[in-house]
Amino acid sequence: MITRAEQKAAQKRAAQMIVQSGIGITEEEKSRIEVVDFGLSHLDVEGVQVLTLVQTERISVKVLAMLPNQTEPEHWHPPVGDDPGKEETIRVVAGTVYFYVTGKDTLRKGVLVRGKERHYTLRHEIIITPGDQITFQPGEKHWFQARDEGAVMYSFSSVARDVLDQFTDPNIVRIVKVTD
Amino acid sequence: MITRAEQKAAQKRAAQMIVQSGIGITEEEKSRIEVVDFGLSHLDVEGVQVLTLVQTERISVKVLAMLPNQTEPEHWHPPVGDDPGKEETIRVVAGTVYFYVTGKDTLRKGVLVRGKERHYTLRHEIIITPGDQITFQPGEKHWFQARDEGAVMYSFSSVARDVLDQFTDPNIVRIVKVTD
Repeated sequence: MITRAEQKAAQKRAAQMIVQSGIGITEEEKSRIEVVDFGLSHLDVEGVQVLTLVQTERISVKVLAMLPNQTEPEHWHPPVGDDPGKEETIRVVAGTVYFYVTGKDTLRKGVLVRGKERHYTLRHEIIITPGDQITFQPGEKHWFQARDEGAVMYSFSSVARDVLDQFTDPNIVRIVKVTD
Repeated sequence: MITRAEQKAAQKRAAQMIVQSGIGITEEEKSRIEVVDFGLSHLDVEGVQVLTLVQTERISVKVLAMLPNQTEPEHWHPPVGDDPGKEETIRVVAGTVYFYVTGKDTLRKGVLVRGKERHYTLRHEIIITPGDQITFQPGEKHWFQARDEGAVMYSFSSVARDVLDQFTDPNIVRIVKVTD
């Protein structure tokens, strides 16, 4: 869980980063940036800020803002009914992002979350800079990390059902609890 | 048809506008900006420049650049097989865009293409500025126009099958012919 104050601070910081990256957003959009701690209660380590621009039964477009050194935990998008699972392209707008996918261990620049190494099984590193993008097929496991400068990216995908995403870390709860 | 020189000039101008709007694109992307004259051979009046960022069997993401006073002709995205037709959200990044949809005639700011009024049947005007967006349901007719400053926008959609789009103007051919 996160406190209301943490939520507000992360939302404000994310809005600043998004605007600074050149993505124009409205005040209404700033106010509905979702702050996600994955139920792990250490937002500055594992977390992401999400602004949903389009959400229909067919497509989803989100802006993801990662604060400096935040990591999005290892996860995948499973099949749901007739849907083979979310297909997603992430395009980086600002900051460098370290992605980890299935393959040979080439992890050099990223940093495993201390004490949670077993929940980060993928070690094949792909470094994506602004203007570059990476595509994940349905069911393809991945995790990613921003470093000192933080990062802003777009997520373009087929229908998103975030609460059904699956995570390697069994402690993760995708629904965020905010306390006063 | 357009000449190779027209194509190159429009591509270069569109690339400049896209970069200036804050959207970072690679040199490879600049080189594959599609210049579309709809087979009407007057690109400066009816035309659009299109950079496809994502194109799969499920989703499509494009950057559309309109040169000053260009108009994208009235069209709709029909059903194709099991697909009810393309569902599209256009989000404006730079410039003001005048959209026309079904409804009461409120056309005030836009300008009908001279001599082609009968191919622009929709007159309900919706003005979209940067950071704002508009969604078209499958089959929903629309046309849009940039004015003096031109415009840059994203098109987020379900699978795009551009060559199957339908246009009010029977003279339109969606496949572009380029001559040397």
